[in-house]
Amino acid sequence: MHTSLACLMKPVLYGYFRSSCSWRVRIAFALKCIEYDQVPVNLIKDGGQQLTDQYKALNPMQQVPAVSIDGITLSQSMAIVQYIDETRPGLRLLPADPKQRAQVRMICDLIASGIQPLQNLYVIQKIGAEKVQWAQHFINRGFEALEPILKQTAGTYCVGNEISMADICLVPQVYNAERFKVDINHFPTIKRLNQTLIELEAFKVSHPSCQPDTPDDVRT
Amino acid sequence: MHTSLACLMKPVLYGYFRSSCSWRVRIAFALKCIEYDQVPVNLIKDGGQQLTDQYKALNPMQQVPAVSIDGITLSQSMAIVQYIDETRPGLRLLPADPKQRAQVRMICDLIASGIQPLQNLYVIQKIGAEKVQWAQHFINRGFEALEPILKQTAGTYCVGNEISMADICLVPQVYNAERFKVDINHFPTIKRLNQTLIELEAFKVSHPSCQPDTPDDVRT
Repeated sequence: MHTSLACLMKPVLYGYFRSSCSWRVRIAFALKCIEYDQVPVNLIKDGGQQLTDQYKALNPMQQVPAVSIDGITLSQSMAIVQYIDETRPGLRLLPADPKQRAQVRMICDLIASGIQPLQNLYVIQKIGAEKVQWAQHFINRGFEALEPILKQTAGTYCVGNEISMADICLVPQVYNAERFKVDINHFPTIKRLNQTLIELEAFKVSHPSCQPDTPDDVRT
Repeated sequence: MHTSLACLMKPVLYGYFRSSCSWRVRIAFALKCIEYDQVPVNLIKDGGQQLTDQYKALNPMQQVPAVSIDGITLSQSMAIVQYIDETRPGLRLLPADPKQRAQVRMICDLIASGIQPLQNLYVIQKIGAEKVQWAQHFINRGFEALEPILKQTAGTYCVGNEISMADICLVPQVYNAERFKVDINHFPTIKRLNQTLIELEAFKVSHPSCQPDTPDDVRT
């Protein structure tokens, strides 16, 4: 596709309503006020639609999300979010100060490398019967580390008083924690930040409970 | 500590010779020609020195690496590498073009979120008897996705003809793969890139076989 034509087209998000990594990308699009189309990839139905050859061509890792944007296809939610941030105007998702940027990235990576990969669908399916305890263990362990870090970095939001990629990572991870019945009351800073963020429009419109592929019995 | 004084001091890397995430940071320091001090944190000895209260204060996640730099302490290797890149002159570790930057980050995150966390020491200790098969499974799965991506993006290095963070992630992951006896011959692009990179000075001086805490029987 010719690049100039590709740039005129809306980005396409291949995602799943309940996937926390898909939600990260939806929050970023919402914060940046970017219109996009969604193509649902049902991770459960038909044994997992992410396993088809058609989807594998978009993301060889066979996970959601993937995004077609500006004539290229990207996978890995944090790479997608940073590409959106670097190429689109509006709210910036990383602070200007290098030390604050590093703190934002540290929080993002603690979640995106230290927690989420260990409790995602593919991994807990391999764990089998003990999957809930496994997921709880790794979420609790991650949150025990995240809580003292956020206590130091947080203002209104995860790092200071401006929304950043750290907030984009936090809210979907808390959502996962609640699904796995982790007691968020043990983490007062995480709880307080999540309560503040979840009230913001960008986090509401992107919430798993109201996406095109959200089943009726989950929809609120 | 007063910031101006902190900036005069060499960065301190808290790491472990064999940790692939510590190696990422060592490569970045070497590529940027930055002198630094190393404080070894032995992940095996005394039940794991990363579990002490002293180390937990540096990195609540109780993992290596952590880096003290410019008066702050950072954890999460990719956040550290990007902080170094954004605050130090010399070779840039991310391309200038936004699409290439996104490709570099996609490759980094595939490794740093999609492979390494699933085969790190803490996780395979929890898996127990089947730990080698578990690690092999997740490395093979990740490399099967990485190979076609690199086939599209690679020139001399992972993305085009300039060294980037993607190369910093690739080489230590191949080292882990070899430790777990994954057959790299199945992944010709990964193998070729690794062979090229491993000959570069920055990758040699930072190699696990020649660090201050490398045991004599591993040292080459």
